[in-house]
Amino acid sequence: MVTQEIWSSEPVNGWPKKHVIDLSSYPDRRKGAPTTPLITIAMTKILAGVLEKNNLPGAIFTAFCGGADIGQAIALDTRIPLVSFTGSTKVGLMVQQHVNARFGKCLLELSGNNAIIVMDDADIQLAVRSVLFAAVGTAGQRCTTCRRLLLHESIYQTFLDQLIEVYKQVRLGDPLESGTLLGPLHTSASREAFLKGIQTIRSQGGKILYGGSAIESEGNFVQPTIVEISSSAPVVREELFGPVLYVMKFQTLKEAIEINNSVSQGLSSSIFTRRPDIIFKWIGPHGSDCGIVNVNIPTNGAEIGGAFGGEKATGGGREAGSDSWKQYMRRATWQVP
Amino acid sequence: MVTQEIWSSEPVNGWPKKHVIDLSSYPDRRKGAPTTPLITIAMTKILAGVLEKNNLPGAIFTAFCGGADIGQAIALDTRIPLVSFTGSTKVGLMVQQHVNARFGKCLLELSGNNAIIVMDDADIQLAVRSVLFAAVGTAGQRCTTCRRLLLHESIYQTFLDQLIEVYKQVRLGDPLESGTLLGPLHTSASREAFLKGIQTIRSQGGKILYGGSAIESEGNFVQPTIVEISSSAPVVREELFGPVLYVMKFQTLKEAIEINNSVSQGLSSSIFTRRPDIIFKWIGPHGSDCGIVNVNIPTNGAEIGGAFGGEKATGGGREAGSDSWKQYMRRATWQVP
Amino acid sequence: MVTQEIWSSEPVNGWPKKHVIDLSSYPDRRKGAPTTPLITIAMTKILAGVLEKNNLPGAIFTAFCGGADIGQAIALDTRIPLVSFTGSTKVGLMVQQHVNARFGKCLLELSGNNAIIVMDDADIQLAVRSVLFAAVGTAGQRCTTCRRLLLHESIYQTFLDQLIEVYKQVRLGDPLESGTLLGPLHTSASREAFLKGIQTIRSQGGKILYGGSAIESEGNFVQPTIVEISSSAPVVREELFGPVLYVMKFQTLKEAIEINNSVSQGLSSSIFTRRPDIIFKWIGPHGSDCGIVNVNIPTNGAEIGGAFGGEKATGGGREAGSDSWKQYMRRATWQVP
Amino acid sequence: MVTQEIWSSEPVNGWPKKHVIDLSSYPDRRKGAPTTPLITIAMTKILAGVLEKNNLPGAIFTAFCGGADIGQAIALDTRIPLVSFTGSTKVGLMVQQHVNARFGKCLLELSGNNAIIVMDDADIQLAVRSVLFAAVGTAGQRCTTCRRLLLHESIYQTFLDQLIEVYKQVRLGDPLESGTLLGPLHTSASREAFLKGIQTIRSQGGKILYGGSAIESEGNFVQPTIVEISSSAPVVREELFGPVLYVMKFQTLKEAIEINNSVSQGLSSSIFTRRPDIIFKWIGPHGSDCGIVNVNIPTNGAEIGGAFGGEKATGGGREAGSDSWKQYMRRATWQVP
Repeated sequence: MVTQEIWSSEPVNGWPKKHVIDLSSYPDRRKGAPTTPLITIAMTKILAGVLEKNNLPGAIFTAFCGGADIGQAIALDTRIPLVSFTGSTKVGLMVQQHVNARFGKCLLELSGNNAIIVMDDADIQLAVRSVLFAAVGTAGQRCTTCRRLLLHESIYQTFLDQLIEVYKQVRLGDPLESGTLLGPLHTSASREAFLKGIQTIRSQGGKILYGGSAIESEGNFVQPTIVEISSSAPVVREELFGPVLYVMKFQTLKEAIEINNSVSQGLSSSIFTRRPDIIFKWIGPHGSDCGIVNVNIPTNGAEIGGAFGGEKATGGGREAGSDSWKQYMRRATWQVP
Repeated sequence: MVTQEIWSSEPVNGWPKKHVIDLSSYPDRRKGAPTTPLITIAMTKILAGVLEKNNLPGAIFTAFCGGADIGQAIALDTRIPLVSFTGSTKVGLMVQQHVNARFGKCLLELSGNNAIIVMDDADIQLAVRSVLFAAVGTAGQRCTTCRRLLLHESIYQTFLDQLIEVYKQVRLGDPLESGTLLGPLHTSASREAFLKGIQTIRSQGGKILYGGSAIESEGNFVQPTIVEISSSAPVVREELFGPVLYVMKFQTLKEAIEINNSVSQGLSSSIFTRRPDIIFKWIGPHGSDCGIVNVNIPTNGAEIGGAFGGEKATGGGREAGSDSWKQYMRRATWQVP
Repeated sequence: MVTQEIWSSEPVNGWPKKHVIDLSSYPDRRKGAPTTPLITIAMTKILAGVLEKNNLPGAIFTAFCGGADIGQAIALDTRIPLVSFTGSTKVGLMVQQHVNARFGKCLLELSGNNAIIVMDDADIQLAVRSVLFAAVGTAGQRCTTCRRLLLHESIYQTFLDQLIEVYKQVRLGDPLESGTLLGPLHTSASREAFLKGIQTIRSQGGKILYGGSAIESEGNFVQPTIVEISSSAPVVREELFGPVLYVMKFQTLKEAIEINNSVSQGLSSSIFTRRPDIIFKWIGPHGSDCGIVNVNIPTNGAEIGGAFGGEKATGGGREAGSDSWKQYMRRATWQVP
Repeated sequence: MVTQEIWSSEPVNGWPKKHVIDLSSYPDRRKGAPTTPLITIAMTKILAGVLEKNNLPGAIFTAFCGGADIGQAIALDTRIPLVSFTGSTKVGLMVQQHVNARFGKCLLELSGNNAIIVMDDADIQLAVRSVLFAAVGTAGQRCTTCRRLLLHESIYQTFLDQLIEVYKQVRLGDPLESGTLLGPLHTSASREAFLKGIQTIRSQGGKILYGGSAIESEGNFVQPTIVEISSSAPVVREELFGPVLYVMKFQTLKEAIEINNSVSQGLSSSIFTRRPDIIFKWIGPHGSDCGIVNVNIPTNGAEIGGAFGGEKATGGGREAGSDSWKQYMRRATWQVP
């Protein structure tokens, strides 16, 4: 008797060689963000070139420019067995519901709300630099951006003083120029969301320690912002996609882990400490409940070899690394007596 | 630099030793079918005994008796990170939607609509016995019951003649008695569903070759039933949970595989043939799209070592076997520089 | 508590940047065959180019030209933790003994003595072509060359007649020319070994059905040779590295498997049949005891994705495929309480 | 095309049911130490009982009482495909050579020479207790016994003072009595080896800090012994199988790791420190080269879930844990076109 398990890729045969291309027979259809059509087109052309050089039809990789209508069409199309979606938790849940209803599979990379914990024994200088990079880089528009900073009470003021000092030195401008850390927000809508977020923060008792304003200039620039706020403020539980950092104080590791785990998102997390007992607690079952659990490095800058993705409202998907290939396979257990 | 991936079980610590037990702190809460409360209670007592013998609190495994209200409460309860559901596709989709909306995980084992294909070179005697066992055993009330029989045109009539002959010899009665193959349906509602199903079959052009009636007696007994019907009849695409077998004719392997894959369910499937080229086509990427792909054995009687579960409307979950343990773990990628 | 297993590559740090290169600090030192120094030098130069293009020192890959003295030096050198050796079983055992005595590890790819079994139901035409290719290609100087042909008695004479017919059409000559199947032997010593082998075959009752002579011409050409001989003749148990094929008759699958497994070498093996019961017996625990177990393809032409290597006197090593990377790693189980 | 890799256990079929048992057909034959025949017999009887309760022939597990002659017979017997040997490096190498020569496989668990490193920041009290347990427990007659103690110069004297203090409290006697840490040596030959070892230690400049004598009484009792000695003394490189601990001083982690790795044996190793940078260095490619790499626990007391075994002169085998099952399997790569 032979019993085996097989993971098969979906059939990719019978490519049309010329002229008439029926898109419905191609397995990989993509949609970029509606605000970045030129990137979408450029990527498609680059990939088509690579495919054709290797005697594969360039149209294997097909991308669309468009908005929610195209996204919904992909979610509903029964010819697409797997939909991989990167975006907000809100939209991701809708995509998942559509795809599930037609018995398809989802790979979700949704919102993050990533915290850095700084213990009393941490290398403060290293931690300050890491927080700056993780909270301000790409103007806070990265899934792994640090949005919450949890400081042990004994180093709270010292740390904040140093952090504000480096925030003052942040250079704004064209991010393609060397030396620029902070570029603009993606759209004017993002700028509006930032300003509305600052209002909400203030209304919920948040205290602006640094920044907090948009900058009057061409481009959607805003100030890198530090906010002192209670971990129970509702706004802290949302992902404000910009350079806004919420700072909180804690007394014990247990409390810090509880705050880290208290939000619905579960993408990345990081602790700064020199003590192995804390490190192993942090990475163990009673520690961070995120998919990425770092030590003495920031929440962003993922190690390419590891599985990338997050738990809870982040959607549970894993891109690259480890056994993520299994998500793209069809799986069968076969038995011959 | 150390980068590792960790799979941790959820914390199972701090079990209360005595008296006051807060159920909310226990990770495993179960619900049996609403029609089988005594089984639920018996299982719970047996497991509690085993747990307590091993100095674990018996209440780790907590089961409820009840219906959809309890099921919905489980689906909605954020204290339950993983909900494993076995039942219909319809209810499974509702469970999945509730659990996803609160960012929990689902393991689904839903409806099957399992076909046996008999090729022209098959061992007919072996195949007839296998179909009988798979279609009539447990009165067709098993997720892996054979519901569709695909016969090569050249052996169609011979096979049917032999199959009807063995159907005639099926002994009905108390399934606990030796020699009884066919017991009653689960409830009088199941009996009603069977009778309504027969009506629908007739209305869609199905021809009753054997059986087709309920039996007037104590218990919800019905006749084992063979139906000749087109693969395009809508009723063939549904799971009628009883001993009803749809028979269809095909000319080529390609056609047989297409019929096998044409339903939304994707649990089990089987082919009877002596030819290795057919076997390897069947178990490969262009073959059956089910989670269980058998050769020369029926659709039911799963090999315990393999991953059990199905694709598409069957829900994609895998119970036992292979890497199913990963579904019960929390996963983290950690990195220390 | 954290318990993990780590597989680490040996340290490859501190490469000297310029001028003075201490070879003793480089981890990869190789030796080609003593008869192919130009190939060794060419390979080394090609690899050095690739390494240097990638900013790695070209001398990471260091190859030596030389004979047994260099080989022995590598085997004895405690700075080389792993010695991978491809060659004869006799020399391999010596290498293994030297390396073991200094507590190093060996990866051995030694002699093969590969059989093709042809069952009574086989596709004869396919099998004849496969045997020709596997026994005559590269003049029988390949580790996976077919050296033994086991024919079911019912097709014995038919098969041999067809095989001799295709042997008559084999074109000898420059193997770089299209259409040439049989090139020369590697050295004049190989030619001598071939002639001495033919003498031994005759003295042990072997009957030359085709070929059996060297060819008087420039180059070490010999005739492709078919020998009818008993499976118990001692010469059948040795690897004669040339285009000599031993043919034997069998009555049952059991007998064929016993003959296949009766030699000390265990590299490759193949069966030609159309029956799945025979296929699954052949690839199962009671079938071939070789590392490579093929069906309806010859013994050579290894699938690149699978683990390559053989059991018993072939040495047990696996190059490429599967978990062969583990052989190049150092392994540790670590534990932190 | 189907390519798969199979790991098959050797055939265990056709067990004779009664009377005439041909031992040559049973796969598992064992030999205990020549000094413990009663244990060997007792174990065999217990296992036979378990096997027979499960309807397996009790003689599957067959053990022999005897010495090197039986061991050699096992090593030479071609009916035994795998020989698993636990014992000294010297005998292990002989076994390996015999088994390799007949193309069998070896699983070796040979000598250890395990060091504990205590860094300047270690928890001294924890480390002292761990060293006592690891060096004196089972009278130093365990493969993972701590035999070398590497102390950072800054805590050298403090540590030694505390260690000698706890050595003074060690209770000798019957090891089955509660409270007894130190039982007798295994045989009078072991006692002689201990005394001879002490002489060698003295002749190579070793200074006895505690113990060093045999005890005049019934049983082969010796004193738990602490020796101050240079890491370059030849005696330090040997495994003296008794409660003798060599103490050495170091200045840097690099130096400590070099001393740890300088012996030919590579079984277990341990470091005591509170600094994560040291921990990750220690468990990484530039750290300990042993198979077991512990942190803040002693060298003995292996975690049952991890792979157990050691590198270099310890033989490279792994018993239990991880992929050790692969050593007991026969491996084949099969391919069907």
